[in-house]
Amino acid sequence: MRLYETIKTELSEGILTLTLNRPDKMNAYTEQMNEELLDFYRSVNADDAVRVIVVTGAGRAFCAGMDLSDGGATFASEQSSEDYRDLGGQVSNQVYEVNKPIIAAINGPAVGIGMTMTLPMDIRIVKKDVKIGFVFGRRGIGPEASSGWFLPRLVGIGKALEWTLTGRYIPTSEAVEAGLMQYESEDPLAKAYEIAREIVDNTAATSNSFTRQLLWKMLGADHPHESHLVESKFLHWAGQNADADEGIQAFVDKRKAEFSMKASELPDFFSSEK
Amino acid sequence: MRLYETIKTELSEGILTLTLNRPDKMNAYTEQMNEELLDFYRSVNADDAVRVIVVTGAGRAFCAGMDLSDGGATFASEQSSEDYRDLGGQVSNQVYEVNKPIIAAINGPAVGIGMTMTLPMDIRIVKKDVKIGFVFGRRGIGPEASSGWFLPRLVGIGKALEWTLTGRYIPTSEAVEAGLMQYESEDPLAKAYEIAREIVDNTAATSNSFTRQLLWKMLGADHPHESHLVESKFLHWAGQNADADEGIQAFVDKRKAEFSMKASELPDFFSSEK
Amino acid sequence: MRLYETIKTELSEGILTLTLNRPDKMNAYTEQMNEELLDFYRSVNADDAVRVIVVTGAGRAFCAGMDLSDGGATFASEQSSEDYRDLGGQVSNQVYEVNKPIIAAINGPAVGIGMTMTLPMDIRIVKKDVKIGFVFGRRGIGPEASSGWFLPRLVGIGKALEWTLTGRYIPTSEAVEAGLMQYESEDPLAKAYEIAREIVDNTAATSNSFTRQLLWKMLGADHPHESHLVESKFLHWAGQNADADEGIQAFVDKRKAEFSMKASELPDFFSSEK
Repeated sequence: MRLYETIKTELSEGILTLTLNRPDKMNAYTEQMNEELLDFYRSVNADDAVRVIVVTGAGRAFCAGMDLSDGGATFASEQSSEDYRDLGGQVSNQVYEVNKPIIAAINGPAVGIGMTMTLPMDIRIVKKDVKIGFVFGRRGIGPEASSGWFLPRLVGIGKALEWTLTGRYIPTSEAVEAGLMQYESEDPLAKAYEIAREIVDNTAATSNSFTRQLLWKMLGADHPHESHLVESKFLHWAGQNADADEGIQAFVDKRKAEFSMKASELPDFFSSEK
Repeated sequence: MRLYETIKTELSEGILTLTLNRPDKMNAYTEQMNEELLDFYRSVNADDAVRVIVVTGAGRAFCAGMDLSDGGATFASEQSSEDYRDLGGQVSNQVYEVNKPIIAAINGPAVGIGMTMTLPMDIRIVKKDVKIGFVFGRRGIGPEASSGWFLPRLVGIGKALEWTLTGRYIPTSEAVEAGLMQYESEDPLAKAYEIAREIVDNTAATSNSFTRQLLWKMLGADHPHESHLVESKFLHWAGQNADADEGIQAFVDKRKAEFSMKASELPDFFSSEK
Repeated sequence: MRLYETIKTELSEGILTLTLNRPDKMNAYTEQMNEELLDFYRSVNADDAVRVIVVTGAGRAFCAGMDLSDGGATFASEQSSEDYRDLGGQVSNQVYEVNKPIIAAINGPAVGIGMTMTLPMDIRIVKKDVKIGFVFGRRGIGPEASSGWFLPRLVGIGKALEWTLTGRYIPTSEAVEAGLMQYESEDPLAKAYEIAREIVDNTAATSNSFTRQLLWKMLGADHPHESHLVESKFLHWAGQNADADEGIQAFVDKRKAEFSMKASELPDFFSSEK
């Protein structure tokens, strides 16, 4: 991977840790961070050494939101309305295309884009009682990072509306109850590694790659038949390849499965929908 | 606003209270009430004095359902099947187009259309232990007011099916747990005003107008990219207008934002989808 | 009904009990079971004697998943990738077309297809502390039975991803909290009969037939207007038929309604979407 300045990546035993790395700025989001995240997410699918991605923040914050050092001019763009693309949405839509499990270890405050950037991830773990919220309405802006699409699908339209219309901070316990966060933890990174390790040690990379794409993409399907067709294609493929053979035989033999295939061996069962 | 007979409206400091007003009939729903609600919801978007709408019932009920004084003939229509349009659905689809936050203060029993009329609203607060339910199956009819679309998106398809197939009354605590209601309260109207006040005092009308439309309408989008495109258009616009400037600068300055723009200044970012 | 070998059916007072019936194999799923389930679900809509379907397993399991007596070759198909269709998905898509309420009484372990086959059912009741899970990733395969579509709509995309990506067993209490199961019970079959009886005794067959189709099919609708149109057609029809007349008049008269119509009298308000 490239050398990044606002993020850093570290790979250990199949688990890639992506750290938002502007700790003196509470990891506030910049254009550079956006470019580096885009570069990372675009390249990670091809890297079979990465089985699971864990995203966290350096220092005491996860991400305090957009860097506001330009003050009121933060969102003043020189681009035309036709050309302008929200930074966060560029990244969210790329995360949607990743085919490896992504776990957010929200180790500190996560506000604005610090919160919405985690919505297209798969599992969110939050440090107890840190500040989180969808505060856009209090800043005169609105939901971004494609959160208008992601948030209601995570917590239902009722909670999504209440949180975004009031812009209030959300107690982390409420976030867990609503399904925004899967876990509260005193040490979100340790919990994230625990889950990541469980995935790496027990599941097939080909399975996870397919599963992640299937569940996200079938959110946009109008009929279960669409899911049936793509599931059928995958199962037919799996039935002719080593991972399914090993996984089932190991279960029958009551031993631990040792999967040998790489995620990159999985055909592309999902045509681009964009 | 017009003078209404079956509903009444009262505006105070940006909060419009819409009261279902047939207290001697438990605010049972009539064709006239339908016409008056349609008229209200069609006109309210243009009224910048209205920042938040609170809906409640006069007397001890919220709305006991359709007025059944015609008995078994209640749903016997002289219109053709092609022309007939469910009353409740006409209103629900209009509520879906409103661009101001709507809070339901369910002060008493809410059954049938009394319940389904609240589904396209944004925040529901229910008085503890009042009678609520989707009782259609017990009356030989079925879900209406477009509730076949709204209810599963609020509570998930499992709860939605159980409630509508059994037609049973739903304990208000269960309704809160399932996400149908955001709050139980001894005084739903007071709680509604508290939230309405929080919205009016802290958020920009332009932000709320956009947010409400975004979240509801992206429920029908098949890909996050659709949300990204409309969010980008809004952010670009916001970046050139006063509310975002003030909201962000106020945050940087650690002072309360004073938003100056009107909701009607917001361009229409959502083409009609119907 | 036909004589089946791997399932059995028993009808009593409007409630059809469908039992997965390979108790010495923990009701593991076979091609024959698939054919018999397809035959059952295809024919049951036409049988007005059946008001509610209760699905359970013989012996101590609900369904332990796919029969793995072929070991690693279980999913090796001689069909082409174009022709191959996942067994479970064939049944799930047929269940989606059923127009009678279906209650799953999960009396014991339900793993893999044993779990996913219940997702298109309407109400799930699980025996406390039995083994359940979406274990596909641990066997080198992936979600099937159209569960890529059904699961996120039941529990939200967050839980759906966590459960399928880790492949872990799910405590039944967690499954209830997440909305996958409506109830935990020491005796799921008794609880299922209690709910089935409540439906048969209190609701109209025409209403339930419409309601079940409406809620499932509107999950695929992009706008509430689609629900409004089909609800309007049904209400217009109901207003000219006996069940609505009886249901409303009985309510007005404060007596129990006695519905006389058969589900097969209901017109087909839903064109096939497949």
